[in-house]
Amino acid sequence: MQAEWQKEAAMADASDEFASLRAAFILPEGVYLDGNSLGVLTVAARDAVQNALIGEWGQGLITSWNAAGWIDLAARCASRIEPIIGAVSGTVAVGDSTSINLFKVLGAIALKAGERRRIVTDAANFPTDIYIAEGVVRLLNSARGPGEHWQVECYDRSELFAKLDERVAAVVLTEVDYRTGERIDAAAGVRATHAVGAQFVLDLAHSAGALDVDLNHWDVDYAVGCGYKYLNGGPGAPAFLYVAPRHQATFVQPVQGWLGHAAPFEFAKGYRPAPGIERAQVGTPAVLSMTALYAALGVIQGVDMRRVRAKSLALTDFFMRVIEQSGLAARGLVNVTPRDPARRGSQVSFRHPQAYGLVQALIQRGVVGDFRAPDIARFGFAPFYLQFSDALKAALAIADCLKDGELLQVLDADRNAVT
Amino acid sequence: MQAEWQKEAAMADASDEFASLRAAFILPEGVYLDGNSLGVLTVAARDAVQNALIGEWGQGLITSWNAAGWIDLAARCASRIEPIIGAVSGTVAVGDSTSINLFKVLGAIALKAGERRRIVTDAANFPTDIYIAEGVVRLLNSARGPGEHWQVECYDRSELFAKLDERVAAVVLTEVDYRTGERIDAAAGVRATHAVGAQFVLDLAHSAGALDVDLNHWDVDYAVGCGYKYLNGGPGAPAFLYVAPRHQATFVQPVQGWLGHAAPFEFAKGYRPAPGIERAQVGTPAVLSMTALYAALGVIQGVDMRRVRAKSLALTDFFMRVIEQSGLAARGLVNVTPRDPARRGSQVSFRHPQAYGLVQALIQRGVVGDFRAPDIARFGFAPFYLQFSDALKAALAIADCLKDGELLQVLDADRNAVT
Repeated sequence: MQAEWQKEAAMADASDEFASLRAAFILPEGVYLDGNSLGVLTVAARDAVQNALIGEWGQGLITSWNAAGWIDLAARCASRIEPIIGAVSGTVAVGDSTSINLFKVLGAIALKAGERRRIVTDAANFPTDIYIAEGVVRLLNSARGPGEHWQVECYDRSELFAKLDERVAAVVLTEVDYRTGERIDAAAGVRATHAVGAQFVLDLAHSAGALDVDLNHWDVDYAVGCGYKYLNGGPGAPAFLYVAPRHQATFVQPVQGWLGHAAPFEFAKGYRPAPGIERAQVGTPAVLSMTALYAALGVIQGVDMRRVRAKSLALTDFFMRVIEQSGLAARGLVNVTPRDPARRGSQVSFRHPQAYGLVQALIQRGVVGDFRAPDIARFGFAPFYLQFSDALKAALAIADCLKDGELLQVLDADRNAVT
Repeated sequence: MQAEWQKEAAMADASDEFASLRAAFILPEGVYLDGNSLGVLTVAARDAVQNALIGEWGQGLITSWNAAGWIDLAARCASRIEPIIGAVSGTVAVGDSTSINLFKVLGAIALKAGERRRIVTDAANFPTDIYIAEGVVRLLNSARGPGEHWQVECYDRSELFAKLDERVAAVVLTEVDYRTGERIDAAAGVRATHAVGAQFVLDLAHSAGALDVDLNHWDVDYAVGCGYKYLNGGPGAPAFLYVAPRHQATFVQPVQGWLGHAAPFEFAKGYRPAPGIERAQVGTPAVLSMTALYAALGVIQGVDMRRVRAKSLALTDFFMRVIEQSGLAARGLVNVTPRDPARRGSQVSFRHPQAYGLVQALIQRGVVGDFRAPDIARFGFAPFYLQFSDALKAALAIADCLKDGELLQVLDADRNAVT
C-alpha cells in the first residue's frame, strides 16, 4: 500500500506545474501544514524587508514616501490581490486587520441601510466576525431612541437563508470554515441574499491564495480577507477589503482617516473621500509589514487560480485517501472535512478525543498542523509550496502517532497549559 | 557672532547627558530635523527586525507566537510606552493606527455618553482627528431617529473652552500643534472639560518621546499617540491608546475583535472583553512593524522625560535665537512657534512666502525639514539624537538659503508638483 502511495505521490510531484515556484519559498524542515495560520517566508519578502529596513527607512528616511513608493504601496498590494480573488481593478484596498476591515464594511452598510437593521451570520463563523458585527451594532444602538434596534443574529448554516427577509441589512459569511474546512457556495449565498435586497459580505480569510475565488462573477457585494495565511504576507500582515464596482460610487465607510481623503496632504478641514477605493484607507500603513506582503504577492503574480485550486484539491484528496485507507477511523479519527470537492476548502480537519496530544506528537515528528478547541486537529495545504510527498509523509505520521495511544494521552494532558 | 554660537554649541554638546545614546541611532548624513514626521532607525530595531524576519518568522513560523513572544509583543510595547507618557501600568494598549485608536476612544465615549452628543475640537487640530470624529458621528446619526443628533464642533483654541456645556461628551485636542509647534496646557484643558462633566481626549502625536507628558497627573481621560515620530518605531509603526485608571472597569470600545477578547483562543461565541486594557486590541498585530517599535522603545527605557524635555527646549531655544540674531525676519521669515517654553513643543516652524522652496534648498544642503501648506517650513528636534551643533548648522543653512532669493523662487515653483 505504502509503495503505491509513494509512487502516486512521486508521479504527482513530477507533473506539478507549480514545482518551480518552490524555490521562491524558504521552507522549514519537515512538513508545514499550518500555512492557513501563518504562511511561510519568501526569498522576495526577506530581501524586500531588509531593503525597506536598512535602505528605505534607515537611509532614505522621509524621502522614501515618494522615492521608495511607500505612498502607493497599499494600492500596489491591492493590484496584486485583485486577480487572485476574481476582482476587477480598483475594487480592493489593503491595510489594517481583517477585523477592522469588516468593521468598515458593516459600518458602510449601516450608513445606507435605511430601515434594515438585521445582520445575519453563521453561528460557526470565525468568532471575530461575530464580535465585530456585535460591536458595530452596539455603537449604532447606543444612538437609537425607542423603536427597533439593530441586531446580530447567528444561525446554523443550513437554516440561515430561510431566515432572511426585507429587514436584513447584511449577511456575513466566511467562505471556508476555519474548523471543518467546509466551503460554502458563495454564489448561491449572494442570490439568496439579493433576493431580499440585502448585502452579501464574504470573509476570504481561508480562501485568498488557495481557492478559485471569483468575487466579481459571484456578484459579492463586499469582502474582507487576510494577508498572512495563504498570501504569505508575514505575521499580522495587513489585510484587505473589497467593494463591488456597483457600490464604489456610494461607498462611504465610517472610519474615515486622512489617508482615505481625496487630498491627504492638503490637510483640509472637511473630510472629502478619495474618488476610488482609496477611501477605505485610514491611517499610515505599517510599511515594513506591508513590504513583506507586497513582495510575497509578487511571487504568485500571474498564476491561474483555477489551476492552484485543482492542485489544492488533489493534495487534500490524496491526503484524505491515505488516511482512510490506513483505517484510522477505527482509532477514533473522524474526518470532518467534506469529501465533495465543491464543498472543501484547502484544509483537512479531524476530530479525535486526544486531538491536542495528536498535534503535539506530530510536531515532534516535524509535521506541523494545529489544534482548534475542543477536539479538532487541522491541517492546511498551501498549494504553492506543498508537494504530494509532503501530504503522504503527514498522513503516515498521523497513522504512526495514533498507534501510540499512550503517548497521545500523555501529550494531551498538557492541553490545559496552552495559552 | 558665528564663533560665539559655535562655542556655545560645543559647550552644550559636551555636557549633553544624552550624548551616549547617539550611538544607538543610525543617523543620516547632514542634519535630520524631520524626526517629528519619521524617526530614525535604531541599531536595536535593525537587528530585531532582521531576527524577527529570518529567525522568528522564517524558521520559527507559527511557534513564534509563543516562543518569540509575539502574543504579548503589544503588551510589552505598552509597558515601555507607559513611563514615557506619565501613565501608570496597565493603561496603555499598542496597535493599529492613531486614527483607528481615536475611533475606538470616541466610540467608547459614545457608548457611555447618555444625552451628551457634542464632540468639541480645535479647528486647527490635525485633520484626521476631525475626520475620525466626524466618522463616528456619521455612524451614530445614521441610527438616530428624529431628535437631537451628534455633532462635531470645531472652534478656535482661544474660545473653545467657553463653548463647553453639559451637552458635551468629549473634548479632543492635540497637545502640540503640528504646524505651529504650540503646546497647549493639557491640565487646564482637563479641568475645563471636567467642569462640565465631559471627557478629555489628548492626541500625543507630536509629544510622546519628546515632551514631559504626564497623563496620570493631569487627569487626562483618554489619549492616543503615534509610534513613528519621536518614538522611532519606523514607517507606519503601530500607534497607542491610553485609558485612565478610573475608566478601565467600564471601558468598552466598539471595534471589538478577537484579540481584545478575554480568551481569544477559546473561540467562544459571545464577546467577553479582556479584563484590562487588552480589550482595546482588535486583530492580529503587524509583528514586523511592532518589533521595530519595541526595539526602538528599548533604547530610551529609563530616561527621565523631564530631562529630555529640558534638552528639547534648550535645542529649540538656541535654534530660534540664532535665527533671530541673524536678522532673518527682514528676509520674510516669521517664527510662528511660541518663545515661551511652557507653550512650545519640540519643533520650530516659520512662515515664509517661499517656504516650499526654502525647504527644498535646505534639503540640497543636507538639512531635512518639511513643508506644510500653505507657507510653513517646519523643523522638528528629536532630543535623543540631535546636538546643538546640528541646530546651529541648520540655522546657518537657513540664513544662507534666504540670502539667495532667486534660488528660493525657482525651487518654490516646483511646489505644485508635490503630491
